[in-house]
Amino acid sequence: MAEDTFQQIHEIGFKRLIDKFKTHTGTEHPAVRRGIGDDASVIVHEEASAICTTTEVFLEGVHFDLTYTPFNYLGYKIVTAAVSDILAMNALPEQVLIGLAIPNKYSVQMMEDLYRGVDAACRDYGIQLTGGDTTASHQLLSVSVTATGAAPADKLIYRDGAQLGDIVCVTGDLGSALAGLRVLMREKKAWQESRSESQFQPDLHEYEFAVQKQLVPKARKDLIESIAESDIRPTSLIDVTQGLISELGSVAKSSGLGMEVYSPAVPIALETRRIADEMNEDVDKYAFYGGEDFEMVFTIPEESVEKFKSDFDDFVVIGRMTEKEKQLTINTGEDKSYQLEL
Amino acid sequence: MAEDTFQQIHEIGFKRLIDKFKTHTGTEHPAVRRGIGDDASVIVHEEASAICTTTEVFLEGVHFDLTYTPFNYLGYKIVTAAVSDILAMNALPEQVLIGLAIPNKYSVQMMEDLYRGVDAACRDYGIQLTGGDTTASHQLLSVSVTATGAAPADKLIYRDGAQLGDIVCVTGDLGSALAGLRVLMREKKAWQESRSESQFQPDLHEYEFAVQKQLVPKARKDLIESIAESDIRPTSLIDVTQGLISELGSVAKSSGLGMEVYSPAVPIALETRRIADEMNEDVDKYAFYGGEDFEMVFTIPEESVEKFKSDFDDFVVIGRMTEKEKQLTINTGEDKSYQLEL
Repeated sequence: MAEDTFQQIHEIGFKRLIDKFKTHTGTEHPAVRRGIGDDASVIVHEEASAICTTTEVFLEGVHFDLTYTPFNYLGYKIVTAAVSDILAMNALPEQVLIGLAIPNKYSVQMMEDLYRGVDAACRDYGIQLTGGDTTASHQLLSVSVTATGAAPADKLIYRDGAQLGDIVCVTGDLGSALAGLRVLMREKKAWQESRSESQFQPDLHEYEFAVQKQLVPKARKDLIESIAESDIRPTSLIDVTQGLISELGSVAKSSGLGMEVYSPAVPIALETRRIADEMNEDVDKYAFYGGEDFEMVFTIPEESVEKFKSDFDDFVVIGRMTEKEKQLTINTGEDKSYQLEL
Repeated sequence: MAEDTFQQIHEIGFKRLIDKFKTHTGTEHPAVRRGIGDDASVIVHEEASAICTTTEVFLEGVHFDLTYTPFNYLGYKIVTAAVSDILAMNALPEQVLIGLAIPNKYSVQMMEDLYRGVDAACRDYGIQLTGGDTTASHQLLSVSVTATGAAPADKLIYRDGAQLGDIVCVTGDLGSALAGLRVLMREKKAWQESRSESQFQPDLHEYEFAVQKQLVPKARKDLIESIAESDIRPTSLIDVTQGLISELGSVAKSSGLGMEVYSPAVPIALETRRIADEMNEDVDKYAFYGGEDFEMVFTIPEESVEKFKSDFDDFVVIGRMTEKEKQLTINTGEDKSYQLEL
């Protein structure tokens, strides 16, 4: 298939388009008894398991911008988003289903690229694409994604399990996805303003880490695998999709407690700091309110922190669960702090 | 809440909107351990079960027209569509998740009406609304729906299980959903043409059966319940969503067989015939190619037909599974027949 082919979907019809998608189904998962092709997919477990289900919607112009998002990256990212929700229950993802509403302006080849990204993500996460729905749309591409996963019922970790005195931890770094988005938006603007000039080429290599984090984020399956191998189990777990403050608030509120966060401890990558500087923006805002980092926040008893560090080392301590009355207290160091209402 | 209130969603925010939805979650299903509120819903079964999952996408302007579709009907219909897919596996639906992308032009009250319809459907089908995603949209309402259900793995019925000589049956009647759509489209056109006149009132009472079938179709849970109580089990099962011919073709092709259908036996309601006459259209086209009837097609061994009729009586025989070479043969009576390629 030549890369420059533009074949309209009505030329081949939705039935043949779906046949093409069937070649991009990721890993054959052993729990999947039936994938694409019947009224519903079928998952069978030998032993009774808890089944976790999540669904998300992504709209062109709201959640993604196809002027700077390659279709395969978009496919990868939507799978990451759903898988991350399953992992955040301490369950292992098994299948994903994709609902696509496609406007005329996109070609068969573009949609195949999207499914190549879905396929790549399914392979990375060890899951199978088992179904979905493909239909026409008027103007904008709409993508919905559903994932299910399984765990023994007593292994699930909810967001409401944090205990008084537990230590609050976060994986990786925060704010880089938003930093990447800021760079992409700036370059798009520069490109639009220079349309008369033919030679505009965005130079993104200095921002590669942040841009990659925005366009093709990875779900933290490594944390869940480490928890399975460790004899320490977090008391609560949530993934960072809305933004750190939102997720911290959700853990505290649903656990019926307060939380104190030491803000200088929140992990921020150097590149994220540099981008915030370039934009004349406060990098703490990126880290606290920027969404789509797909990192994990978890709480564990204080005595387990060092021990767990030897099982999994890509996390830092950022705070502690407190009495409810302290709400969400942000301690900025130098004896300054402020409270956010839960 | 006054019916004429128009409150914009940004006035209350998505978080409070979702809180409102939490009061419309249908039945509390015993298998649901966690519903709305965590990263994913949780289903737990005491014994190992097969889990069936389906997802569908509905777009304003493509799949529904809000000029004649009340929001509560839309909510009911999207649940029906997903539940029907689960039932068509001979599984019982347990949960539904809704993904909504909402443009500015719709109010908080309208979205609550939509969820009232979701709630009503969940109660009728005995299932629980357990989650979803709610987000902004640019112009058009987009709804995605995911349902899961369960059955003992050896009770599932696939579309590919039909055997040579099996009898092809269909529940209810066909083509009425399309007939209802034709009436609604005609009334919409009349309304648009009479906009200068203030008194236009569509008169739909003569078409109530077809219009209801289009706007608030019911999934055939009664058939699945009857199968469970009967000692007869269909060899294949599929729901009629794309249109009868499409579903029959799917059963035949996936079962590696052909099929002969006696077209005068296809059940068509009198009102559907009357509407087709008014429109100067061929009612067989409605019945064969009209989608969204949500009736069930199933195959059973010839010797079981009479026996099953005593367990469940709302079906008729329309054909028989044949050798593959006969493809999909439509016998129109009077010794005339034609073949459709599978």
